[in-house]
Amino acid sequence: MPSNSTRVAGRHFLQIPGPTPVPDRILRAMDMPVLDHRGPEFQKLGRRVLENIKGVFKTKSHVFIFPASGTGAWEASLTNVLSPGDKVLMFETGHFSTLWKNMAIKLGLEPIFIEADWRTGAQPDAIEARLREDKNHEIKAVCVVHNETSTGCVSPIGAVRKAIDAAGHPALYLVDTISSLASIDFRHDEWGVDVTVSGSQKGLMLPPGLSFNAVSEKALAASKTAKLPKLFWSWEEMIPHNKNGFFPYTPGTNLLYGLDAAIDMLNEEGLDNVFARHDRHAEATRRAVRAWGLEILCREPAHYSSSLTAVIVPDGHNADDFRAKVLDAFDMSLGTGLTKLTGKVFRIGHLGDTNDLTIMAALAGVEMGLELAGIPHKKGGVAAAMEYFTSEARKNQPSLAAAE
Amino acid sequence: MPSNSTRVAGRHFLQIPGPTPVPDRILRAMDMPVLDHRGPEFQKLGRRVLENIKGVFKTKSHVFIFPASGTGAWEASLTNVLSPGDKVLMFETGHFSTLWKNMAIKLGLEPIFIEADWRTGAQPDAIEARLREDKNHEIKAVCVVHNETSTGCVSPIGAVRKAIDAAGHPALYLVDTISSLASIDFRHDEWGVDVTVSGSQKGLMLPPGLSFNAVSEKALAASKTAKLPKLFWSWEEMIPHNKNGFFPYTPGTNLLYGLDAAIDMLNEEGLDNVFARHDRHAEATRRAVRAWGLEILCREPAHYSSSLTAVIVPDGHNADDFRAKVLDAFDMSLGTGLTKLTGKVFRIGHLGDTNDLTIMAALAGVEMGLELAGIPHKKGGVAAAMEYFTSEARKNQPSLAAAE
Amino acid sequence: MPSNSTRVAGRHFLQIPGPTPVPDRILRAMDMPVLDHRGPEFQKLGRRVLENIKGVFKTKSHVFIFPASGTGAWEASLTNVLSPGDKVLMFETGHFSTLWKNMAIKLGLEPIFIEADWRTGAQPDAIEARLREDKNHEIKAVCVVHNETSTGCVSPIGAVRKAIDAAGHPALYLVDTISSLASIDFRHDEWGVDVTVSGSQKGLMLPPGLSFNAVSEKALAASKTAKLPKLFWSWEEMIPHNKNGFFPYTPGTNLLYGLDAAIDMLNEEGLDNVFARHDRHAEATRRAVRAWGLEILCREPAHYSSSLTAVIVPDGHNADDFRAKVLDAFDMSLGTGLTKLTGKVFRIGHLGDTNDLTIMAALAGVEMGLELAGIPHKKGGVAAAMEYFTSEARKNQPSLAAAE
Amino acid sequence: MPSNSTRVAGRHFLQIPGPTPVPDRILRAMDMPVLDHRGPEFQKLGRRVLENIKGVFKTKSHVFIFPASGTGAWEASLTNVLSPGDKVLMFETGHFSTLWKNMAIKLGLEPIFIEADWRTGAQPDAIEARLREDKNHEIKAVCVVHNETSTGCVSPIGAVRKAIDAAGHPALYLVDTISSLASIDFRHDEWGVDVTVSGSQKGLMLPPGLSFNAVSEKALAASKTAKLPKLFWSWEEMIPHNKNGFFPYTPGTNLLYGLDAAIDMLNEEGLDNVFARHDRHAEATRRAVRAWGLEILCREPAHYSSSLTAVIVPDGHNADDFRAKVLDAFDMSLGTGLTKLTGKVFRIGHLGDTNDLTIMAALAGVEMGLELAGIPHKKGGVAAAMEYFTSEARKNQPSLAAAE
Repeated sequence: MPSNSTRVAGRHFLQIPGPTPVPDRILRAMDMPVLDHRGPEFQKLGRRVLENIKGVFKTKSHVFIFPASGTGAWEASLTNVLSPGDKVLMFETGHFSTLWKNMAIKLGLEPIFIEADWRTGAQPDAIEARLREDKNHEIKAVCVVHNETSTGCVSPIGAVRKAIDAAGHPALYLVDTISSLASIDFRHDEWGVDVTVSGSQKGLMLPPGLSFNAVSEKALAASKTAKLPKLFWSWEEMIPHNKNGFFPYTPGTNLLYGLDAAIDMLNEEGLDNVFARHDRHAEATRRAVRAWGLEILCREPAHYSSSLTAVIVPDGHNADDFRAKVLDAFDMSLGTGLTKLTGKVFRIGHLGDTNDLTIMAALAGVEMGLELAGIPHKKGGVAAAMEYFTSEARKNQPSLAAAE
Repeated sequence: MPSNSTRVAGRHFLQIPGPTPVPDRILRAMDMPVLDHRGPEFQKLGRRVLENIKGVFKTKSHVFIFPASGTGAWEASLTNVLSPGDKVLMFETGHFSTLWKNMAIKLGLEPIFIEADWRTGAQPDAIEARLREDKNHEIKAVCVVHNETSTGCVSPIGAVRKAIDAAGHPALYLVDTISSLASIDFRHDEWGVDVTVSGSQKGLMLPPGLSFNAVSEKALAASKTAKLPKLFWSWEEMIPHNKNGFFPYTPGTNLLYGLDAAIDMLNEEGLDNVFARHDRHAEATRRAVRAWGLEILCREPAHYSSSLTAVIVPDGHNADDFRAKVLDAFDMSLGTGLTKLTGKVFRIGHLGDTNDLTIMAALAGVEMGLELAGIPHKKGGVAAAMEYFTSEARKNQPSLAAAE
Repeated sequence: MPSNSTRVAGRHFLQIPGPTPVPDRILRAMDMPVLDHRGPEFQKLGRRVLENIKGVFKTKSHVFIFPASGTGAWEASLTNVLSPGDKVLMFETGHFSTLWKNMAIKLGLEPIFIEADWRTGAQPDAIEARLREDKNHEIKAVCVVHNETSTGCVSPIGAVRKAIDAAGHPALYLVDTISSLASIDFRHDEWGVDVTVSGSQKGLMLPPGLSFNAVSEKALAASKTAKLPKLFWSWEEMIPHNKNGFFPYTPGTNLLYGLDAAIDMLNEEGLDNVFARHDRHAEATRRAVRAWGLEILCREPAHYSSSLTAVIVPDGHNADDFRAKVLDAFDMSLGTGLTKLTGKVFRIGHLGDTNDLTIMAALAGVEMGLELAGIPHKKGGVAAAMEYFTSEARKNQPSLAAAE
Repeated sequence: MPSNSTRVAGRHFLQIPGPTPVPDRILRAMDMPVLDHRGPEFQKLGRRVLENIKGVFKTKSHVFIFPASGTGAWEASLTNVLSPGDKVLMFETGHFSTLWKNMAIKLGLEPIFIEADWRTGAQPDAIEARLREDKNHEIKAVCVVHNETSTGCVSPIGAVRKAIDAAGHPALYLVDTISSLASIDFRHDEWGVDVTVSGSQKGLMLPPGLSFNAVSEKALAASKTAKLPKLFWSWEEMIPHNKNGFFPYTPGTNLLYGLDAAIDMLNEEGLDNVFARHDRHAEATRRAVRAWGLEILCREPAHYSSSLTAVIVPDGHNADDFRAKVLDAFDMSLGTGLTKLTGKVFRIGHLGDTNDLTIMAALAGVEMGLELAGIPHKKGGVAAAMEYFTSEARKNQPSLAAAE
């Protein structure tokens, strides 16, 4: 809220990498009376969302839905397939992979953490090499974050699968898609993922409060013998209820109404169109960053994220001071730098239910904020993004091309 | 909806000069069960809005609220104070003043229409001159549109009052503030207006469906003898009911909930802050237009509107083709040129519940659209607006100035 | 709000004969961003509602939609087809027919009012007799209220048509269906009605703010020469815009979203089912009233309303004191007695989006309120209604019948 | 949905013992844009709800809020204070206490289960006796369900505390208040509870999706050494974030908006008024059950629940067939009998945001359903409830008493 006013006019610009702006259609779908979660109306809803969510994960297997936020689905992914003392191979892509590793420790697992500098996605070669060393197959799972929300780097999930196979290693493959699902192409079945973790509040365009485990047959088999204690997260408890469209305990009824609407919206747009839209917004953002003469945190173009872009602030300047000024002057929230990136980067979220003009507003807010914060930069980021969007609009629409 | 997609992602940009985007708080206030309009709960609401709306008009007199859109309040303003065959002096500021004149004819009045070129507000001198000619005081009312929504020109309402007084003429003074109220300073009492007409769907940030007549004692006195037939619009029917917070027929209950919230929001921000915000958005828009090398329809800077800016499209180009491309490519609605301006201008609405970044998005959409539509222009409109907003942010916030 | 508490728990019971409770689905449909009322998205909506509303009136002719409450549609019905000094024959069914008559006087018409005692619908014989006297056909219109909201008596609209024809009289036939449309069967075309007046806030389940004129070809022809002044209500202004799905001035956008949803809901249930449901609720209510030993205001069973039941309070008791106690103790609004019925009757609304158990709640509230207010009555009204609903449930559902 | 219609008119009656009907005010509060959960606006909200929720638990200690449904808060209560192999003393009050016991087993604890017949609350004497046997204090926790949702029996939480103290036993005291909080008086501090478990979807009038642990200092101390693995549920992770109004992972933002509104509503009504209202609705329900000649499952009047009443269906009849008929004929959901009570009882929920007339509707639906289902019963349940409500209304409101 700007300091010169007691009311902020207009809509807040929520340009963090999730939670993302929830479309009115989804908010209104949730703004409905609670149903009896053991009755026939609920059952129809339960069956529908349990079936239709599969398409979003590109899987034919089961997807478990938890009435809890994403961190819970991480816990579910580990506790359902692993036993105390199990070794898990994890790759340090950034803050969130580190949190997942810390969770593994807390749960009594023994993570092997391939360290890296938070500027790339996971490296298949390094994973393959480490798995080859594990002659006795003590490593029970490989855990990779698809889109590292703290850095804006994407891991090559299909390539990691090939690396595991090349090493001839039987470890389960667990992937966090919390900030990539329904924003960046992900293929649970084709890429041989055993447990995919996700959440509601990013590409699915919902408020936080639902999370997911998509599971392979191999993962289900592993869950029969896994010994980590759990009940709330237990797939075994879920399965018989899910078969009838129900849940073993009170589900997040109204969020499920929203999920039902969200899946419809994604299908109406078409997942490929959704991904292309995210790619376009990310590219426009990167062109702006380059025009400003600032550095993108993700070093490897092949790993650029279509969900968010983390931008390095020059030495001697604090990214959080900049963010505070942008919030104060222009009522826009940008993502903060996390743990070791605190003060060093800010993150521009460009995922979820957004469009070209909203991205333009966000980039204008950043460009004006850089000026207000006295951060050295060149003008022209906004102009570069406009030029790109204009050329994309021509490309996509023959009628517009004709106007040239 | 873009032609390459079946769903449009993100929020539509409604940059027409009204209806304006309705804040969530107001939409949610309206999204409530209907009350018994003859019961005690409704009575509290009725009393509150009837009292509090006065402050928005800057009047201590009564404000009538009709469950009808703005055109109805025009009809109410004429039928309550005039009789068949009465002469009314009206000034041609544009499409809407012409419609009001046509209404007067339909209702059996005899309008005297001071013609003008739709590029200025009303001219007090011309009004004074015409009134002086009217030695027998056959003219019963002077009608002026405060903000002409079709052109973006503002009439000097206080100066017209002085002109009427200078002419020593007893005519009633009727003013249309449909697109100025709660956006551009307006002072019913101080400026000696007898009937102020307004509507819900612009500066009041509500959906269409409520309209208003703020009335002076002189207007109330005139209504006792006015002979134009009416019942729905009749102030006389309203007065005894309004005294108790009620209405003579079913009121627009849910829109009244919204009005109650809208008045609170305006007061929380402060009307002066609201006007300053509109001025800022208008100035940014005009700077962009000038940077593009395009012409602003309103010729007289003193008459510039803070609600909207009408922009002339160069000869050989059609403003509606341009608007269609902007809607198609960027999901933004701009205002069309009306009647004799059709195809010649487009209008950028910058009124109601909006903020700097939304204006930036709108200007970016226009600048990209000019390119797509092949309309000759210079780049730099968006850059000019950013420069202006940055300097305004520094001015308003000492903490930001310090960052320079 | 009960006097012993600052918050009232649970939902208010709105058992007045309109406005009626608005379904969540309709409220949520209205709780959406305003559209550009001159753009292509709005056009689709406009075309859809203008076409689909016809089915609700059972007409193939045009239906005009006004952004105004029902009293306005009365005014539109008169001003579009009549000229100053025209005679109109009206039947005194109660408070609302009297108001319509008073409006006719205010508008400069000369109503001939067939007086009656507010305990029946209109009497075709009396109308026929009066028309036969009118040898010179000075009477230009016959005006009848289908369902008199103040009394709960229904007029036989088809029979009045036959009476007009039997008299060989060319008068236009105007019918007010404000509290009958979508609750009680009404057939604009089959019954030869020329102008049907209606509103949004009763059987259409919307908040107040929209109203309607369904018109015959004969009425449209009459409108070409009618001389009463009007613009807001003018059909002539509407026609060219409506042809393209638009309106001549800002329409009630969000109420139109609601109307679109309301028509869908009525069609999903089926109009015949809607009428049968209203009949059932009315019959249950009347059985309760009789069991209490109280008198139904409507004297003629053939004229009983399925929208509401007005109940006479015994001499020495005041119906408004009773209503106040019910509101205070049980948070239920009942309809008041209007003008000459003040204090003598209360009205139970049983129209719109309601169901058997809500009616049971309402009847329980009345039965308990009678006790609290010390109004002499027999117990057993609620029991009688339960017995009736049970037998109806058995009749409608073979599976339930089998359980006996 | 009744079989004779494709649309169900009116509002569904959700008379299960939770989730309960969510008030419009809370649904609308949740129907708002998501905030940045790391920003200053969220921080204000976080601080407010974390502080204000304490009053609902009647504690000055900390209350943890999980973005998960109630079963999760059970898991949190056990995993934060216990270690693998710990003995816990649990009392079999019904289905939910059995589930909690099963969870304890799954988590690697060793529950000692005091068996009972599901027709009373927990018995302090039995608990004291068992604790006295535990000379070595191997029992680390006593777990009691305050209101057993499957049976409608309330456990005397204060008396159990006294029993633990009388036994001189140091065990922690864990209480499940999922279906009692904000419906039945509960006093975390005064009754010496160490961990209180609760959820959002019952007395708090919210949709499911939030759950709670109110904790004593003793519980916090125990959590430092407890060895059950956890991260999502870990209090330790929460504490430093909560101090600033934040959470360690994405919180249930929109449900927190709702919680904020819910606490306001409870305080506006006053907790004592809330409890009295629940008591009144429960008593009316029991009077109806007795009048029908049916048996209340809870055998001990001192243990009657004010949240729900479980009713025994006579031998030879199936409660679920009855419930299906009620749903089909009257669109009302009643609670099913769980596990060993399947088909033998139905449960009437009378908790949350409800009022006298809604209870009357529910009881009428039950009475009519008994008839439709052919279940032997006497008429008069509804009449008995009306008589009770009438006398209560007189008692509470002097103005009504005067009317007698």
